[in-house]
Amino acid sequence: MRNGAVPDVVIRRLPLYLRTLRQLRREGQQAVSSEELARFLGTTAAQIRRDFSYFGRFGKQGYGYDIETLIRELEAVLNLDRTWDVALVGYGNLGQAIAHYRGFEPNGFRIAAIFAKSPEHIGQVVNGLVVLPETEIERVVRELAIRIGILAVPAEAAQEVADKLIAGGVRALLNYAPVTLHVPPGVVVRDIDPIGALQSMTYYLEPQEPRPSADGTPAPDGLNLAAVAAEAKRQASR
Amino acid sequence: MRNGAVPDVVIRRLPLYLRTLRQLRREGQQAVSSEELARFLGTTAAQIRRDFSYFGRFGKQGYGYDIETLIRELEAVLNLDRTWDVALVGYGNLGQAIAHYRGFEPNGFRIAAIFAKSPEHIGQVVNGLVVLPETEIERVVRELAIRIGILAVPAEAAQEVADKLIAGGVRALLNYAPVTLHVPPGVVVRDIDPIGALQSMTYYLEPQEPRPSADGTPAPDGLNLAAVAAEAKRQASR
Repeated sequence: MRNGAVPDVVIRRLPLYLRTLRQLRREGQQAVSSEELARFLGTTAAQIRRDFSYFGRFGKQGYGYDIETLIRELEAVLNLDRTWDVALVGYGNLGQAIAHYRGFEPNGFRIAAIFAKSPEHIGQVVNGLVVLPETEIERVVRELAIRIGILAVPAEAAQEVADKLIAGGVRALLNYAPVTLHVPPGVVVRDIDPIGALQSMTYYLEPQEPRPSADGTPAPDGLNLAAVAAEAKRQASR
Repeated sequence: MRNGAVPDVVIRRLPLYLRTLRQLRREGQQAVSSEELARFLGTTAAQIRRDFSYFGRFGKQGYGYDIETLIRELEAVLNLDRTWDVALVGYGNLGQAIAHYRGFEPNGFRIAAIFAKSPEHIGQVVNGLVVLPETEIERVVRELAIRIGILAVPAEAAQEVADKLIAGGVRALLNYAPVTLHVPPGVVVRDIDPIGALQSMTYYLEPQEPRPSADGTPAPDGLNLAAVAAEAKRQASR
């Protein structure tokens, strides 16, 4: 671990800056001011300058930042000037979606091992990788010197899987399971928690009854959803 | 929107408290102290008491909190004492994983409409729902009085889909697309950003070369992953 000089909340914001800068670069832009970046991200120029100030060499206030340089600096700070191998554990619906996601490699991550529990999944070949049994996690992760694990397993299994990954040398866990993992010092965890995110948004919503959709087919009078879909299909296939 | 008396960062933590309290309830526990809750969540009792202090009636310091009461209070604050209908847009690998996820309903959310772009998906029936064309988003969302949308579409499509959902009355967006959405006041967005989470963890890792896995089959000398998987399959099927 680096020493905690830079608050974790700042570190968490850097990837967002990087993503935005890469987008601007794709659009052919070469320089950007903290004000413009702030508008893009719905934050303030002051916060962006404050965040960057932790990494002295970013500072080019007034003139705006050179996008190419800033991208390289951020990649260096985040250790993204290289590709990281990742172990994926869990091969249900979510694990399969993650295994097929095309967004990892362009962003510095490569799924190098996939582990599953169910015999129907073990032995399958995905993107040239053989799906391995979870019993092999510690050994394989150590052999491949993998430092990052993605947990796409049920809540009940998450802690045990995390322990195996950590025993094999993993030091960073991306956790999709709805549980709070307990990990030793030196291991960092980020939770992907869509339920928590939804539950933190309903606070802001007017508590108003939606139309009932008890039986799972929420078609109100006058709107035949099946017909809507069928008609759209016809038009699409013309 | 409620007035901003309670900081959003506090609101974001409440679902985590709720999840933990429900877990303790499942395990048969009836009361919990802020200290115990803090240990569970890797935070401090002071922060938990400070967070709860925004909602005066929670305060039962010293004696510990009655779990059942606290759960009901948190559910009321977060407007979770009811079920919310949700519109899911996007039916690729991720959208399908979300559509089949069993965790929504027990936590107060019910996918009430699913929209897709590709003709191969439109018209399919999923959990009793007909997959509808994205062209129908605004109309259907308004008819069903849906306030919450989940975006599982590609980055290029996300803003347009968000605009359609908002036009139909959606006020809360769970965004899986790697883009910063621009929304009018009164609309809240939470981003699910696994890439950003991964990139914020590599900061803490020692930059050390992992074993090469160029061709996608990262088998180091002496470890035949295919054989490992085959053997495990044999054992499993005994």
